[in-house]
Amino acid sequence: MQWVKVLGGVVGAAALVGLGIILGHFAIPKGADVPTPSVSQDLDLETLETVMQQLDANKIRENLRELSREPHLASSPRDEALVQLLLQRWQDPESGLDSAEAPTYEVLLSFPSQEQPNLVTVVGPTGGVLFSCRQSEENLTGEQAGPDVIPPYAAYAPPGTPQGLLVYANRGTEEDFLSLYTQGIALEGTIALTRYGGAGRGAKAVNAAKYGVAGVLVYTDPADINDGQSSANETFPNSWGLPPSGVERGSYFEYFGDPLTPYLPANPSSFRLDPDDAPGFPPIPTQPIGFDDAKILLCNLQGTVAPDAWQGALGCDYKLGPGFRSDGDFPADSQVNVSVHNRLELRNSSNVLGIIRGAVEPDRYVLYGNHRDSWVHGAVDPSSGTAVILELSRVLGTLVKKGESSPRRGLAGLTSGPHPQEFFSKLQERTVAYINVDISVFANATLRAQGTPPVQSVIFAAAKQIPAPNPVGLSIYDNWIRHSNRSSAAYGLVPSLGTLGAGSDYAPFIHFLGISSMDIAYTYDQSKTSARIYPTYHTAFDTFGYVDKFVDPGFSSHQAVARTAGSVLLRLSDSLFLPLNVSDYGETLRSFLQAAQQNFEGLLEQHGISLGPLVTAVEKFEGAAAALDQHISALQKGSPDPLQVRMLNDQLMLLERTFLNPRAFPEERYYSHVLWAPRTGSVATFPGLANACSRAMDTGLGSAAWAEVQRQLSILVVALEGAAATLRPVADL
Amino acid sequence: MQWVKVLGGVVGAAALVGLGIILGHFAIPKGADVPTPSVSQDLDLETLETVMQQLDANKIRENLRELSREPHLASSPRDEALVQLLLQRWQDPESGLDSAEAPTYEVLLSFPSQEQPNLVTVVGPTGGVLFSCRQSEENLTGEQAGPDVIPPYAAYAPPGTPQGLLVYANRGTEEDFLSLYTQGIALEGTIALTRYGGAGRGAKAVNAAKYGVAGVLVYTDPADINDGQSSANETFPNSWGLPPSGVERGSYFEYFGDPLTPYLPANPSSFRLDPDDAPGFPPIPTQPIGFDDAKILLCNLQGTVAPDAWQGALGCDYKLGPGFRSDGDFPADSQVNVSVHNRLELRNSSNVLGIIRGAVEPDRYVLYGNHRDSWVHGAVDPSSGTAVILELSRVLGTLVKKGESSPRRGLAGLTSGPHPQEFFSKLQERTVAYINVDISVFANATLRAQGTPPVQSVIFAAAKQIPAPNPVGLSIYDNWIRHSNRSSAAYGLVPSLGTLGAGSDYAPFIHFLGISSMDIAYTYDQSKTSARIYPTYHTAFDTFGYVDKFVDPGFSSHQAVARTAGSVLLRLSDSLFLPLNVSDYGETLRSFLQAAQQNFEGLLEQHGISLGPLVTAVEKFEGAAAALDQHISALQKGSPDPLQVRMLNDQLMLLERTFLNPRAFPEERYYSHVLWAPRTGSVATFPGLANACSRAMDTGLGSAAWAEVQRQLSILVVALEGAAATLRPVADL
Repeated sequence: MQWVKVLGGVVGAAALVGLGIILGHFAIPKGADVPTPSVSQDLDLETLETVMQQLDANKIRENLRELSREPHLASSPRDEALVQLLLQRWQDPESGLDSAEAPTYEVLLSFPSQEQPNLVTVVGPTGGVLFSCRQSEENLTGEQAGPDVIPPYAAYAPPGTPQGLLVYANRGTEEDFLSLYTQGIALEGTIALTRYGGAGRGAKAVNAAKYGVAGVLVYTDPADINDGQSSANETFPNSWGLPPSGVERGSYFEYFGDPLTPYLPANPSSFRLDPDDAPGFPPIPTQPIGFDDAKILLCNLQGTVAPDAWQGALGCDYKLGPGFRSDGDFPADSQVNVSVHNRLELRNSSNVLGIIRGAVEPDRYVLYGNHRDSWVHGAVDPSSGTAVILELSRVLGTLVKKGESSPRRGLAGLTSGPHPQEFFSKLQERTVAYINVDISVFANATLRAQGTPPVQSVIFAAAKQIPAPNPVGLSIYDNWIRHSNRSSAAYGLVPSLGTLGAGSDYAPFIHFLGISSMDIAYTYDQSKTSARIYPTYHTAFDTFGYVDKFVDPGFSSHQAVARTAGSVLLRLSDSLFLPLNVSDYGETLRSFLQAAQQNFEGLLEQHGISLGPLVTAVEKFEGAAAALDQHISALQKGSPDPLQVRMLNDQLMLLERTFLNPRAFPEERYYSHVLWAPRTGSVATFPGLANACSRAMDTGLGSAAWAEVQRQLSILVVALEGAAATLRPVADL
Repeated sequence: MQWVKVLGGVVGAAALVGLGIILGHFAIPKGADVPTPSVSQDLDLETLETVMQQLDANKIRENLRELSREPHLASSPRDEALVQLLLQRWQDPESGLDSAEAPTYEVLLSFPSQEQPNLVTVVGPTGGVLFSCRQSEENLTGEQAGPDVIPPYAAYAPPGTPQGLLVYANRGTEEDFLSLYTQGIALEGTIALTRYGGAGRGAKAVNAAKYGVAGVLVYTDPADINDGQSSANETFPNSWGLPPSGVERGSYFEYFGDPLTPYLPANPSSFRLDPDDAPGFPPIPTQPIGFDDAKILLCNLQGTVAPDAWQGALGCDYKLGPGFRSDGDFPADSQVNVSVHNRLELRNSSNVLGIIRGAVEPDRYVLYGNHRDSWVHGAVDPSSGTAVILELSRVLGTLVKKGESSPRRGLAGLTSGPHPQEFFSKLQERTVAYINVDISVFANATLRAQGTPPVQSVIFAAAKQIPAPNPVGLSIYDNWIRHSNRSSAAYGLVPSLGTLGAGSDYAPFIHFLGISSMDIAYTYDQSKTSARIYPTYHTAFDTFGYVDKFVDPGFSSHQAVARTAGSVLLRLSDSLFLPLNVSDYGETLRSFLQAAQQNFEGLLEQHGISLGPLVTAVEKFEGAAAALDQHISALQKGSPDPLQVRMLNDQLMLLERTFLNPRAFPEERYYSHVLWAPRTGSVATFPGLANACSRAMDTGLGSAAWAEVQRQLSILVVALEGAAATLRPVADL
């Protein structure tokens, strides 16, 4: 889903990663004082059930109330206060956690100027200001005013005061600007009004600048967020809809991680790029506005009527411009001025890391994380996730404290901030999986999970055993499959597991470190709404009251997510055999292969490139995975010794690493996983191959672009052959 | 030592790596039929002693006789016959090996033309040929003729027929050419005569081409190889000296690995660079010649007398040229013509891989390797190593076959060819160490070992328990320390362990995969000879008779190397706790740090760059390593469970990996280890930092070169912090 790429979550991508507590094996020995679990102890279902029962919706609600009481923008005093709050909870000897710490980093953040607020105006032919967009959201609930509510801005957009005729550019994609250009619309020096969606935030400005556009405005169309509803009485606080003055903030930086320290930890002493030379910032001033203001601008445009797909729900025909129509609110040659006074600052920001040590395999970690910082109060994003992490750590810690459980593998939780890259080699060697719960509840209809194929089975296993909050009588799994499903060659109809973009804190874990990762949340019924995301996302209306009244009254969906993520966590930490089903990668590889064959094989053959080696590699993978499955089944029936189990688990854990190639995509910062890198086309297939094909398409035989296709194919084949080799019997070398 | 960089070993760097047999834990249970060793069984000293006793000098001699019977240039019929010979030995059910295979690759090799032999001539003013250098070596022992003796050539040097005045350029380093240039010697269009040593083979042509030199000749000066002796009766077959017609062949390709498939396996289907665009080949025609021919050219030069350091042992004053003196053998304006007709060919080449499975930890491998191909007969290089591998595999395999031993960890041996990169992820995850025995005996005076610090202790332990062949009564260790020693802060006087360049098959293991590696050989007494290397290196005189009569009569040094490498192999495969001493890295880091402080600190401070974070990182490493040592000692006193041992061994095994950063040296193909990359300066310190400092030295404050210094420092600090983190208690995350 496109918004996932846009999500960003963390302020200014400051947080390269963020986790919250380290957790382990909760094998039971009840009542005993600090039991030492046996090396062959498996997941204890009673402990699991105890955890499920103890996860308390009301406690999550109270956590959320506290976490979202004040705005807590990254590096703000309130954000620092939350660092202390989390630290205190986890360092409390009663917490049951073994340790907690909060290392501090120095990251490049972007803020609007307090002295010179950003401003969007319509300027008449004589220079007079005819209209000004709001500079802050309307104070509807008493929470939208005050010094801590940061005015809407496009973080990392450069300062500047461009002024020009307005054009409407739909979602600001490459195709959108090309379409305006081919229609003969003069774009040079214009201000482009775009709506959220379709392209990443920063991409709109990148695309616009290529056509000489001088400034970009971004708004959220009621068609995309409110199912068309736009009046005050139809929206928050009267419904969950986005109010007319609501503005989505966000990071407009192209990559994830700190902008100045790519591939390095953002330590104070680390080498930093010169901000003037650092890549990834929007090239031109950009400012987000609310749809009430966007309506005044858009409904006054002159020119050709935009195509149907470009129309929205502002109640007028969207025209393309440039400039205003003579019979509207402004003189025809009025211009739009975009005054942006953002500035970059190096600020301190901390991770909070809580740890429960593993009792049997302390060098194996299950990581669970989220960011902590919000754009305003951030009740949904991210505090709904933080509220869950706190409740999970309370329940698990209490069991450990009471001696009712001691984790087999170590558990680590983390909230926000840039994770220390100095630990990356160790995390990469030892981490079993990364669980991300950022926004835990978008809406209360169904579970939504994303992840790499090996985590599908453990999420399914958890979801099958937890009751859905609604409708009564269904498991989370049964409810999920009704909302979103696919047909699997191996299993028949199953819930649809989404893929991971870079929209939250899992990004470095999967893309840079090759750790099997997942994101777990509750979300809405897509048959009932076409909202891009929950309506108050990144606005001043994302408050506790909003969650309590509209998103998840009763907090049963929060509880459902806590249970699902908690069950997955326990299964990963305590199961004797890691519940990572590597054969499920075979299904993905096969479907990617079929898509590649259908879409590219003919073209490739014309250029003398055969998919044969790729077919062979996929077959080898499937064969090795099937044999390994049989081997696991046989071992499970016997009484395997601890080393046998460990060796097998290492195969399962390390499979994902074999897909990494740091030289595959040199242009895509941090992306090293050859199966999940950004893909430009719409075909769900191997990204490197697909991107290279699409670039080579219009070039001649023997071009450098076709050589790159062959290189990408070889990289892929080597990765799959390596993956298959990792799954084969270890003694065979 | 410089020659190590020049060594190359493998024809045309075709072999990215090469191993020979996979070996494991030989814990004994005597007489039992195929015993299953206990998970906590340790190295069995009786088994070790049995292996030491059974390694037979005479069998090594017989192996060498067979292996070096014919020339076996890579991909030649005889090289393929040796593939079959090795396969048959290792696939024989009586061998005791579990399996053997010979995967085939397609590598770019370089050969001289048979139809148009390369030729170096002196051409008079009227175009007549006044003198021709030999096109082959003199047939002194009946072995230097025949179709399989490849004429001397510079592999990968491009074809061409440059002709010009001759200049003498010493060793062809950057400084050498700069010195000629600053003396006003016109280099444009000349032929540069250079001697081996001082710079890599290919580097001479690279340096020359920058000054417009049109062709390069390379010869071996008797001063550098024969301690000055040069007459026929002073040299082979009358001594071990290089005969006047002897010519060192070799690869002039700049990198290691197949030139067309960087970072990919050289599979037939792999993406290949266009040879015309592939980097790393010498830019101008180059040809090696013997010193009898070099003497005629050099002793006839006119011009300034070369500096003392440029003089050699050809019996005349070396002058710089350009051109010949008028009172010599040629008219003053005679020119030298270098006709090179080399051509590139894609050829099939195989690895042979033999495996003894690990009985307790089959997913841990000790690799032992060497290349197989030679330049001519290659009795020393590489067959002296191959002869040892065959004897080791015979003894170990026989013990396994008899049920007197079964390896704890898997053992793999490999001979030559480009190793499958599709297995690299798995090898990287599972390999305990890589042992290289290429040239096993350079000479018979003393052991010579190179490696990364963790292997020092296991080599010392082995060397202390094996008698030196000579003098009687000393251990190999005691003899070694007499020949080459250093003062260690931790241990006092110890034998000097050398560092690993890229001169043999360990290169990809240490530099690309970060696997602790070593190279083991016997070598000469440096107080008695200043030879660059054994004199007949890469010539047609490197024959069985040469070894048998001059290098190691009686083969006791071969036996000593077999015992040392075999003991190291057994210790690595069978010890319960891996005998890798990670604290020994602390000593290296401390000495690198001190050198950096002494040489760069003042300069760095002038540019606002502090070594403080590096000092802290080294201290953290030392502290973590010392604590781990104590932890190991404590565990060894108790009865640790198998998982505890495994976790600790993983820390030891994976330490070396933490020093890898694939983004540290993007220009240095395959080099990712931040401590052992090529270093331009003479200070033994961190290579990335030193190289960056030397490049930045003459640039201004705030230059890009100084930013790179800071980046290299950060990369180093992150690596050392990561290494320290890997050594800290695993439960602490």
